[in-house]
Amino acid sequence: MPDQLVIKKIKGGVCAPRGFHANAVSAGIKNPDDPRLDLALIYSQHPCNAAGTFTTNRIKAAPVKVSQAYLKADAVQAIVANSGNANACTGVKGVGDARQTAKLVAKELGLRQRQVAVCSTGVIGLPMPMVRIEPKISELVTGLDSQKGDDVARAIMTSDTCKKEIAISVKIGGHRVRIGACAKGAGMICPSMATMLCFITTDAKITPVCLQKAVHEAVDNSFNRITIDGDMSTNDTVIALANGQSNTGSIKRNTRECRQFRKALQHVMLEMAQSLVRDGERVTKFVTVEVKGARTYLDAQKAAEAVANSALVKSSWNGNDPNWGRIIHAIGYSRAMVREELVDIHINGKAACLGGLQAKTPMDTLRNIVAKDSFTITINLHLGKADYEVYTSDLSPEYIDFNRSEYAYWKQARKDGLL
Amino acid sequence: MPDQLVIKKIKGGVCAPRGFHANAVSAGIKNPDDPRLDLALIYSQHPCNAAGTFTTNRIKAAPVKVSQAYLKADAVQAIVANSGNANACTGVKGVGDARQTAKLVAKELGLRQRQVAVCSTGVIGLPMPMVRIEPKISELVTGLDSQKGDDVARAIMTSDTCKKEIAISVKIGGHRVRIGACAKGAGMICPSMATMLCFITTDAKITPVCLQKAVHEAVDNSFNRITIDGDMSTNDTVIALANGQSNTGSIKRNTRECRQFRKALQHVMLEMAQSLVRDGERVTKFVTVEVKGARTYLDAQKAAEAVANSALVKSSWNGNDPNWGRIIHAIGYSRAMVREELVDIHINGKAACLGGLQAKTPMDTLRNIVAKDSFTITINLHLGKADYEVYTSDLSPEYIDFNRSEYAYWKQARKDGLL
Repeated sequence: MPDQLVIKKIKGGVCAPRGFHANAVSAGIKNPDDPRLDLALIYSQHPCNAAGTFTTNRIKAAPVKVSQAYLKADAVQAIVANSGNANACTGVKGVGDARQTAKLVAKELGLRQRQVAVCSTGVIGLPMPMVRIEPKISELVTGLDSQKGDDVARAIMTSDTCKKEIAISVKIGGHRVRIGACAKGAGMICPSMATMLCFITTDAKITPVCLQKAVHEAVDNSFNRITIDGDMSTNDTVIALANGQSNTGSIKRNTRECRQFRKALQHVMLEMAQSLVRDGERVTKFVTVEVKGARTYLDAQKAAEAVANSALVKSSWNGNDPNWGRIIHAIGYSRAMVREELVDIHINGKAACLGGLQAKTPMDTLRNIVAKDSFTITINLHLGKADYEVYTSDLSPEYIDFNRSEYAYWKQARKDGLL
Repeated sequence: MPDQLVIKKIKGGVCAPRGFHANAVSAGIKNPDDPRLDLALIYSQHPCNAAGTFTTNRIKAAPVKVSQAYLKADAVQAIVANSGNANACTGVKGVGDARQTAKLVAKELGLRQRQVAVCSTGVIGLPMPMVRIEPKISELVTGLDSQKGDDVARAIMTSDTCKKEIAISVKIGGHRVRIGACAKGAGMICPSMATMLCFITTDAKITPVCLQKAVHEAVDNSFNRITIDGDMSTNDTVIALANGQSNTGSIKRNTRECRQFRKALQHVMLEMAQSLVRDGERVTKFVTVEVKGARTYLDAQKAAEAVANSALVKSSWNGNDPNWGRIIHAIGYSRAMVREELVDIHINGKAACLGGLQAKTPMDTLRNIVAKDSFTITINLHLGKADYEVYTSDLSPEYIDFNRSEYAYWKQARKDGLL
């Protein structure tokens, strides 16, 4: 019997699963005069199994170091997150600040310090303005509420133009299970401004090993498909909390229930990952690049990522130019095995290049497709059976303009006496 | 005694060495109404030893395949080059067109076909307009002249805004030797529009083995330091012709003369490579990224290239933002071994980051340096003794604008009945 899974979208974001509360406040982290929400809390009223994946960047932000240790050591049951400052490259003081935040939140919640994960996103290299964060923590905890998932999704935004959240309901082993999530994105060439964050809540009852495995697998098939060469920024973090309040039986490894849960989790993460691409900095197009017929899985991945990360290819998409020459050029330098005379490139199913040569499809037909805000490039190398798919965007002049300077942050930090 | 070498700049470009003639004509390759020079010829009146390096891209343009074979097989004595069409991804017909061009030039010059190397640069995927090239070859050969090095430098330009040429005179083993060169560049993120071309002429008398080794070494220390992760585009070609007319004794391997020649050749290529960066598409800044204290040479290279290729880092330079956070972030994902607390970053000698933390140099001081049109980022990892240096540029909104579409080329190709 196939693992048929009916996925129903529901409201509430991270508060949709039973027993989760949330809140967000404005602490003026970027700037004391900025009234936007920038400090958020997710809290489960019941003990959780927790799992996470963290950046593979060798430079890790302080909260990453701290949360990684907490997740290993204890049953994390709350997540405190801020935007506006990444607390990265902040040395011993930065680690102290992250721990202090966890400690203060834990105290208010009646938890142990190591039960509170800490996440930050924003500019790198500036000390945290603890003087503005600490006084807000009591208000943050007091205001916890089962209706404020939305506020958390908004509070973690930096250069995002819209909040990203989702909640679904699925039946696993005969019981209804809910999964909620919110995420924040980044520039799309390589996660920018230090960070992709994604928080997942679920009322599934699931063993720690099974949860960890499901999270890793889902991240591999979602967030790792939108980053440059599989690398991550200093702060990237995905944390999942499962509090078991759905009254399912415990989901264990290698069971049908586990497969169903993994499928549901992957659905949630893929939605979040794709929405990050769509809201990438100054992005105008969502592009799926699929490589088929590669000799090996790694070859398929290399070719797909080379195309998806090529500034020249991305620039041409921005100009509605179905430039297959630049695509094959990128495949050529990707180090994937390729034979020019075998390469086919289709755009939304229309042939742009067949056997390494210009196909007969009228250029205007291809041009009309690339002018859309979403299309798929399919590359068949005809050398084997491996395939790989990545999600990417165009690259716009406005992206560069947007990323030209973070100088204002430094000026504020100096005003704050932090530099 | 150290290999002291006095390098004197002289005039004449590729015609500066004795016995070299050149010419360029307008064949309307891009567009029949375009009067610009686009077909060039370099010719030595005397037999040459020749050496070359070609793109490592797995998709190679037809002229690369053809010239690579010719250089192995015979004593190449002339180079015919065109801009406006890369003759890449043009299949069997493209190879036939490249051979036909060599054949026609050889016939006019009284050489064998395989003594004429062929190079192309321009748009990928369009057939060569041979109907406009063939009638021009007789004029191209007839007009050969010892004063037209300059015309060749101009004829190979595509998106370049200025011609790149150089000629030097040095004393090797007591005899005066001249080296001339011209080159064409490309977008700076990764060689664009299919191609970097560099032609080198010299009247040195040098053994084929010694010449080939010298060319490889010089390319490694120059052109390979300005490309993305050491990869090259479909057409990249460096060809050196040495005709022995300077009456030096024959320069052999492992001699003082050989070391002097290598030094002189490297000087020429580094000048050309750096001028390509300076004239990169819509570039406003020339940036040297040097990594010191890496554990291994490969680590130093990875770290330097990650920084030099980061769109975020390059965008910040464009905005005069001395953003060391983005630099350390790029080092972190480069896969080089790095310990955050040891990393120092200096900009023109001023500390931006010490031990992984913000240094005390006033941000305005750093900002004033990054506002210049040329500066050096020095990264010390303090983990070993290996170092590596690359030359790069900022990334401007205008670059993207410029690279948005090559559609006009396709329209012309259709007018020409080639598609």
